[in-house]
Amino acid sequence: MADEDLQRRVRTVWWETDEQGAAVWLVDQSLLPQQVAYLCLRHEQDVADAIITLKVRGAPAIGVTAAFGVALGLYRLLQIHDQHAKPLTSVEALAHVAHVCALLGRTRPTAVNLFWAIERMKACAEQSFSAQLSVLEMRERLTREAQAIADEDVDACMRMGHYGAELIADGDTLLTHCNAGALATAGMGTALAPIYTAHKGGKHVHVFVDETRPVLQGARLTAWELQQEGVPLTLITDNMAGHFMRHGNIRAVFVGADRIAANGDVANKIGTYSVAVLAHAHQIPFYVVAPCSTIDLKLASGELIPIEQRLSDEVTAIRGTQIAPTGVQVANPAFDVTPHHYVTAIITECGIARPSYQETLRQLCLARIPGKVDA
Amino acid sequence: MADEDLQRRVRTVWWETDEQGAAVWLVDQSLLPQQVAYLCLRHEQDVADAIITLKVRGAPAIGVTAAFGVALGLYRLLQIHDQHAKPLTSVEALAHVAHVCALLGRTRPTAVNLFWAIERMKACAEQSFSAQLSVLEMRERLTREAQAIADEDVDACMRMGHYGAELIADGDTLLTHCNAGALATAGMGTALAPIYTAHKGGKHVHVFVDETRPVLQGARLTAWELQQEGVPLTLITDNMAGHFMRHGNIRAVFVGADRIAANGDVANKIGTYSVAVLAHAHQIPFYVVAPCSTIDLKLASGELIPIEQRLSDEVTAIRGTQIAPTGVQVANPAFDVTPHHYVTAIITECGIARPSYQETLRQLCLARIPGKVDA
Repeated sequence: MADEDLQRRVRTVWWETDEQGAAVWLVDQSLLPQQVAYLCLRHEQDVADAIITLKVRGAPAIGVTAAFGVALGLYRLLQIHDQHAKPLTSVEALAHVAHVCALLGRTRPTAVNLFWAIERMKACAEQSFSAQLSVLEMRERLTREAQAIADEDVDACMRMGHYGAELIADGDTLLTHCNAGALATAGMGTALAPIYTAHKGGKHVHVFVDETRPVLQGARLTAWELQQEGVPLTLITDNMAGHFMRHGNIRAVFVGADRIAANGDVANKIGTYSVAVLAHAHQIPFYVVAPCSTIDLKLASGELIPIEQRLSDEVTAIRGTQIAPTGVQVANPAFDVTPHHYVTAIITECGIARPSYQETLRQLCLARIPGKVDA
Repeated sequence: MADEDLQRRVRTVWWETDEQGAAVWLVDQSLLPQQVAYLCLRHEQDVADAIITLKVRGAPAIGVTAAFGVALGLYRLLQIHDQHAKPLTSVEALAHVAHVCALLGRTRPTAVNLFWAIERMKACAEQSFSAQLSVLEMRERLTREAQAIADEDVDACMRMGHYGAELIADGDTLLTHCNAGALATAGMGTALAPIYTAHKGGKHVHVFVDETRPVLQGARLTAWELQQEGVPLTLITDNMAGHFMRHGNIRAVFVGADRIAANGDVANKIGTYSVAVLAHAHQIPFYVVAPCSTIDLKLASGELIPIEQRLSDEVTAIRGTQIAPTGVQVANPAFDVTPHHYVTAIITECGIARPSYQETLRQLCLARIPGKVDA
């Protein structure tokens, strides 16, 4: 069911073993679109650094990367012990997994998929430990669990694409913000999945792409992805969205999410809230596309979602070029929260939730068998 | 009445004569804030180019620059004729002024101050011609008229500052978009004038500055200006405005204008419309500050205002650094139109207009003696 074309072109994150051991591979998103270069990470700290420095980003992709990072951590420790012919005990293995989980959990605070994936990996290690499996077997289980998280993400993207494409009509012009495509997932994307599916299904779509300052995921990543796939697009600066809505150029908005609270409030890339208010003012549907792993039923509302504050140089410099006077005070929240009443529908791999989200999101999440996508 | 402190620090445009003849001086705004360099222009074509390439920008500053450019054109022609000891006739002088006016009128389409200033200069030349003045006298008249336009702008800025400051309370946090400060005028600015006046009057103000993509007038110019003046500021990307409004960080919005239609619709830098919709959604006052020369009573509504479309590389590259894939399609309208119902008040040098603008703007413009600011 995976979209092989797209994934051959844009490989975001994957796992490989070779004669040197195991490795997490990533396309270095900080270099796109000028350069398509891949990173081969063999240490869990490098995985953490890659997440912190946005070499990999996008809530589902961060989750998958962290899951592989946990498996990598145990792989590496076992390798060192093997090299010194020193046996590794299950207690030591479990402790190391906990350490790696903590390390990876400190990288970024907002996307809940990170913590969801880490929890699954930790639970997997604990089950292996409880079942008195060998350390090698624990490593195998962790590797398989991480791969399962990646595979489920690929599948979830396809399903979100399928459900979301129903909301797109032939000839539609859509707006997206940030990057919620193949580069944000292990699969074909969240917000872009319906667009890709509609496009491949023969519908004519045109995408307005917000450049998405400060990190420019729209200009650098979404524009590049859509170009690779042959989807017609128009790149705009974030502040143009309202102008084009007013002139009737936008029929619907599709965005991803980093965390969705139980009431349907959505944390997503900074600027999403402004787009939602503008869409509302122009009576344009505002769709959020995210896997159930992005839904955090433990949080009653979006006010409780921690918002990452990033360094000021993302705002004062663009790819190394200073654009503001030295010493200027800057605010740089990486995300904002869109209240649920601005959200027309939330498209997940288990179906489409509509208000009242308090009930519909819970139903969707309950319908989903944990660790396995419910067909 | 001029604010000498500010104008010593930030000289946007002025006229000088020296042994080489006459010159229009500009601070090169394309180099700010990294470099404070001044341009000495001795040919009307260089003035036109400086306007086209945004070395000078801001509706009132463009008007003043164009006015000086017209005077410069005649100055230069006379100089050439003098060098060749060839007399210049009044007919030739008038024809050349018309030519220079046409040249400058082709530089940018949206800001009406440009056409307003050009019309004044043309009328001045025609009056000199009708009065059978000598070419030297026509040159003197034109130079004085351009200087009057500049001086009136300085005075208008002070008055807008005075009126607008009444709307600012001690402790206010305000938002501004683009640059409508000293760098956009011959004086202390339009939208920033009330802020400077309130600040100097001892009110504590804090300004959130939209960076204003694509040309970054907020990050490069407004942040720098406010820093020079010691006004506390926080630089944000354009897409953060809604987030900070939602969190109660913005008490009012102050922006400039490039053209105001008879019904109060406002053309201003792209992104202004989005800010206005967001302000409206958060019940935040949205103030437009502009001299009467920005009001175009001949246009019934904003839909009739020509919107300049600029080159795509302003979006795809930032100060020479490419940020988007090669060949991507881009939209780059330099301005948008904010419908009058989003505008809380329009602050001019003749007082504050409130809805219904159809009546109040006309009254303000009638109260103003053309060519002289009415006290």
